[in-house]
This record gives sequence, structure tokens and C-alpha cells, in this order.
Amino acid sequence: MPAPLQNDSFLRACWRQPTEHTPIWLMRQAGRYLPEYQRSRAKAGSFMGLATNPDYATEVTLQPLARFALDAAILFSDILTVPDAMGLGLSFEAGEGPRFAHPVRDEAAVKALQAPDLNKLRYVFDAVAQIRRSLNGRVPLIGFAGSPFTLACYMVEGAGSDDYRQIKSMLYARPDLLHRILAVNADAVAAYLNAQIEAGAQAVMLFDSWGGVLGHRAFEAFSLAYTRRVLAQLQREHAGQAIPRIVFTKGGGQWLEQIAASGADVVGLDWTCDLGKARLRVDDRVALQGNLDPMVLFAPPEAVAAEARAVLDSFGPPQRADGRCGGHVFNLGHGISQHTPTEHVAALVEAVHTHSAKLRAQG
Amino acid sequence: MPAPLQNDSFLRACWRQPTEHTPIWLMRQAGRYLPEYQRSRAKAGSFMGLATNPDYATEVTLQPLARFALDAAILFSDILTVPDAMGLGLSFEAGEGPRFAHPVRDEAAVKALQAPDLNKLRYVFDAVAQIRRSLNGRVPLIGFAGSPFTLACYMVEGAGSDDYRQIKSMLYARPDLLHRILAVNADAVAAYLNAQIEAGAQAVMLFDSWGGVLGHRAFEAFSLAYTRRVLAQLQREHAGQAIPRIVFTKGGGQWLEQIAASGADVVGLDWTCDLGKARLRVDDRVALQGNLDPMVLFAPPEAVAAEARAVLDSFGPPQRADGRCGGHVFNLGHGISQHTPTEHVAALVEAVHTHSAKLRAQG
Repeated sequence: MPAPLQNDSFLRACWRQPTEHTPIWLMRQAGRYLPEYQRSRAKAGSFMGLATNPDYATEVTLQPLARFALDAAILFSDILTVPDAMGLGLSFEAGEGPRFAHPVRDEAAVKALQAPDLNKLRYVFDAVAQIRRSLNGRVPLIGFAGSPFTLACYMVEGAGSDDYRQIKSMLYARPDLLHRILAVNADAVAAYLNAQIEAGAQAVMLFDSWGGVLGHRAFEAFSLAYTRRVLAQLQREHAGQAIPRIVFTKGGGQWLEQIAASGADVVGLDWTCDLGKARLRVDDRVALQGNLDPMVLFAPPEAVAAEARAVLDSFGPPQRADGRCGGHVFNLGHGISQHTPTEHVAALVEAVHTHSAKLRAQG
Repeated sequence: MPAPLQNDSFLRACWRQPTEHTPIWLMRQAGRYLPEYQRSRAKAGSFMGLATNPDYATEVTLQPLARFALDAAILFSDILTVPDAMGLGLSFEAGEGPRFAHPVRDEAAVKALQAPDLNKLRYVFDAVAQIRRSLNGRVPLIGFAGSPFTLACYMVEGAGSDDYRQIKSMLYARPDLLHRILAVNADAVAAYLNAQIEAGAQAVMLFDSWGGVLGHRAFEAFSLAYTRRVLAQLQREHAGQAIPRIVFTKGGGQWLEQIAASGADVVGLDWTCDLGKARLRVDDRVALQGNLDPMVLFAPPEAVAAEARAVLDSFGPPQRADGRCGGHVFNLGHGISQHTPTEHVAALVEAVHTHSAKLRAQG
């Protein structure tokens, strides 16, 4: 029997219910900017050494919560665990980012592709269960996966890319091949997220990190259609608790209305969007998550606090005059930089909690 | 006395006047995808060897016009000529992109910064004059410069960047320093473009390649405000001919209305925008330029033609039912890739001319 939640502000904001302050968590909050993370990683030997060992994954997931009054934890893992379990041979080369030994580029490779045996991802579900026990109800735990399109980018390119030439060549020249990859990915991601939910994840997030590089019609057909396919297969609740689904498309601000209609409960935004205008566009039919530029954290603490207040003011008080309520989960618009000073993160969390409580009192 | 223009479709589209077909040119059309360019570059020894020699610059500017029925020429040069002339020490390292020996990062460097002596950029104006003579009225010649913000990115970062940490740290921590850099850049760029106009450029384009990495408020204050400062100083005509001004902010689709109100006559769009919706948003108060994904050119010629037709159909016939006229200049949404097959470019130009003429006949 899991411990009751002591701080449910994150889940309440996802469901557009009143909260005393705006909850905050940070993408990549368990990461290299924390000296204690660096020490854990040195012990584990590598990034994947941390991610594949539930003890280490639990240790680093909890590290930022010990420092900062964050309102949610997020599973320490990587979106590429899924294609790795498909047999593509993931490695992280020093300073170079991820690489696949067997990229999926030709018809034979596409035909051979299959959703992975979930037993190969057991280490992820074990980590979710162990983190959940260790949290002991302190804050909710978010599970996550890459979107089908974002996974396909890495699978086809074989690594990061600056022009997405391989996957876009496939998209425009052999759309049938890309659709097959995306269908396999969508079903694999849905099964993967359902298993995270079964293991104890209390919310799930889809990272569509590269959907924003697509043309507007291609985004609908090759990214959003498969996000919908994932969401349609997810279980809506577990152990009597509804599971909110967050969809974040970096660079997707122009497509906010379509993303909001995808089946997402929460839409993540990057810093190019005006949060207040975004709220008007979705009319509080979904909650919004974001959207401070992570680079703001390189300014002095007073400037960090001022920028955080500007984001909160832009959203405004969640309660509306007509009695409805909006939902805002404060976050960065992208993962926190490894170079971020930790004391600036403390200033951010403090400013978000203090100013958002004040906004509600005035509202 | 310059030769009269034989093909003014590009200029007419910029001014939202009727044309028989939609004019097309391609960003980076004189570039590495052309074998004849590669040969010229080998002779010159380097990229800057081409750019600083008016004979070579003329040779490569005209190369794509010999192959394709393009409706405009664009000066062969680089946006970084201006900061180079400020004494920052530009070099292009093999496979690494541009680098400045003396990035502008501290108060002393910012204070020392001055608009360059235009005599140091004489090679650019000489190239413009020589290209104009060589074109002999065939198509108009476009001059260009980087936007004040985009130049500042390179000047502060010292090279390309994937997170813009140096310039954004300055923006959030010492906005006064960045405003000073941008003011110097704006005045330098205005003088530089006016000198290009004097030398014979028949249109000018500002490349705000990196404005899209800014938050929405920062974009207004640190990019668009200085674009306006450039445009306000530009001469509106030369030798009796009005000079259209094109502003292209990559990733700026969310800010289209503001960019359209900046003083631009033409707004460039990348492929994430729906051109038809963009046209409605600006209501034909400016012309639009774009917006095919350059990666479409890796598809077979029939698929290239189909995607080109989709872009043209999205804009629709320029002539409106109310008698007004819109303007569309076909282009890519970013520079053409060096790996592009030349026969696919030929298919694109042919499809744009043929289909756009057909659209007008139906319209």
C-alpha cells in the first residue's frame, strides 16, 4: 500500500484544480549541474550505468529533492532505452552524445524492427517501483518516454543531427518506411509507459524534442498522429488514481491548439511562447507546463527571480472570474544546463513558490 | 547607366504587384552543392578567398543562374564580414564553421567596439557593382547583412553555439552590455546595406538566423528592436528605384505580426509555418518569402514538385477577390544543403514556374 501523497500540488495543477502555489519541477533536474550527481556517476562509471541500476537511478532521482523544494520527481532514465531494447546498440561516446551502432535506414532494417520485449526494460520498471517506495509519498513521480518521432530521429540518423537529413529524406522519399517505424515506436512507447504506470509512475510525459524541426503538415502526419496513437493506448488510471499525460514538443508553439487536442492533459511549452497568450489559445482546456529559458539561470539570483515572476504573471492566477480554473506547472522550456549554479536553482524555486502564493492571495 | 531589367518578377512580388509566375530564388543558391562552385573555391583557396575577391564573388554569384531559371541573384558573401571588419579576427576552420579570435565578452571589449570603417568592406561593394554589371539586367541583385542580434551571437559566443549560453548570460545578467553591442551593430549594418544599395543592390535582406532562440520578450527587445533600427536608417530608393527590404527570422513564426510591422516589405518564413495562415495573419500588408523545407530536395523530383505545388497552393493566387494583390517569393525556409542533387533543384524551379502560372490562369 503506497504512502499517501503529502504534496499533491503538481497533480492538482495537471488536473486544473486549485493549489496554494504553482508547483515546480525542472526538466533534467537530476543531472550534471549537481556535484552529488557527478559523484554518483563516477561511482557508476557511465550514464547508462546509472540508468540501468535501480539503486543508482533511485539515488540520483532523489538528489535534487534533497536540495530544493521541488513539487515532483521524475524518473532518472533516457528516452533512448526503448530503441536500445529494440537491438539498435546504444552507446554514449564521451562529449558526443548518443550513438546507435545499427541505425534503421533501409527497407530491410525497417521491416525487421519490432517493439521490444519489455523484460529488457525491467531495470526501468524496477527503478520506478524503488523510487516510488523511497519517495514515500513526499511528491509524485513522473514517468516518461520519447515521442515516436523523436525516437525515430535518433534511430534513422544514428546520432544527433543538425539538419535531420536522413530522416527527412526518408520522410519525403519513402514515407511508407517512416510510417512503419513510427507505428512500431508508438506501440512500444505505449506499452513502456503503461508498464511504468503499473510500477508506480503517477504521471507520464512524452518528450517530442524534435517535432519542431518538421514542416507544419509533416508535424501533423509524422509526429502528432503518433503521439495520439500512444495516448489512445495509455491506461487512464492506476490504483484508483488518474494519471495525467504531459506532451512537450520543443519548438511546437505554432501548433499549440492541435497538441492540446491530442489527448494530452498538460502541454509543455518552450520559452519562445508567451504563456498568457498560450493560455488564451487553449482556454484552460489543458494545463500548461513551462516555460523559463534555462539560460536565465546564468543571471544573478535577483534577475532569476524577476524572470520567474514574469512567467507567473503572464499565466496569471489559475482561478478565473467564471469559476473555472486553469493549471500551470512551472518548469524550464528545456533541460537544465550542466553549467547551472545550484544556488540560482534555489532562488528560482523560492521565487516561484513565494510569488505564486502572493498572486493567488491578490487574485 | 545600368541595363533595364529583363525579369522584374522578383521585385514586383516584393511590392505585391501582379506577376505571371511566382518568382523563385534559393538561400545559399551559390554554394557547395554546385560542382562549379567547388572548383571556384578550390582556385580561391578558401571561402573568404572567394568572398573577398570581386572577380570570384561575381563568378560564383552567377553560377546558379547559368543552370536554373532563377528570378533573382544574391550577392555571394557572408554575414560575418561586418564583425570581421570590426577587428574580431574571423577565420573558418575546416568542418567547424566560423570562429572569432577576439570574442566580445567583457565590459572593456564592449566599450571598445565600434562600427567598422567601410573602406575595410570595399571588396563587398566592389563585388556588388561588378555582379550588377555582369548580370546586365537579367535579374535583380539582392544585397544582405546579418541582423544585429545574429551578428552579436557570433561576436559574443566567438563561434556557433548550441545553447547560446554566453550571449544569453550577458542578456540576462548585463543587458546594458548587449544593448550597446546591438546599437553598434545596427548602425554598422545600416551603413553597410546603404553602401550595398549605392553600389547597385536592388533589394536587401536581413538574416536574423538566430532570433528564434530567444524568449518572446527578449526577441522583441534584443532582436526586433534593432532590426527596426536598421530599417529606419536604410535609404528607400536608389537611382529612382525603390529598394524592398526582406526580413527573415528563422524560427520566428510565432512573431509574424510583429516582424511584419517592423518596416519590412517582405517577411521570410521557415517551413514550420503554414503559408496560407501566415498570409491571413498579415493580410497582404507585406509580401511573404519561403518556405519549403530544404530537405524536401532529397526526395525524387516528382515528390519535390508535389511539395512545391503544396506551398504555392497554400499561398493561393496572389490576386484577391477585393482587387488587392498579395506577394509571394518562393524560396526555401533555410539555406540549401551542400548535399542537394542539382537535378532536384532544376525540378523545383520548373515546378514553381509552371504551377504558379497555372494557378494564376485558374484564379
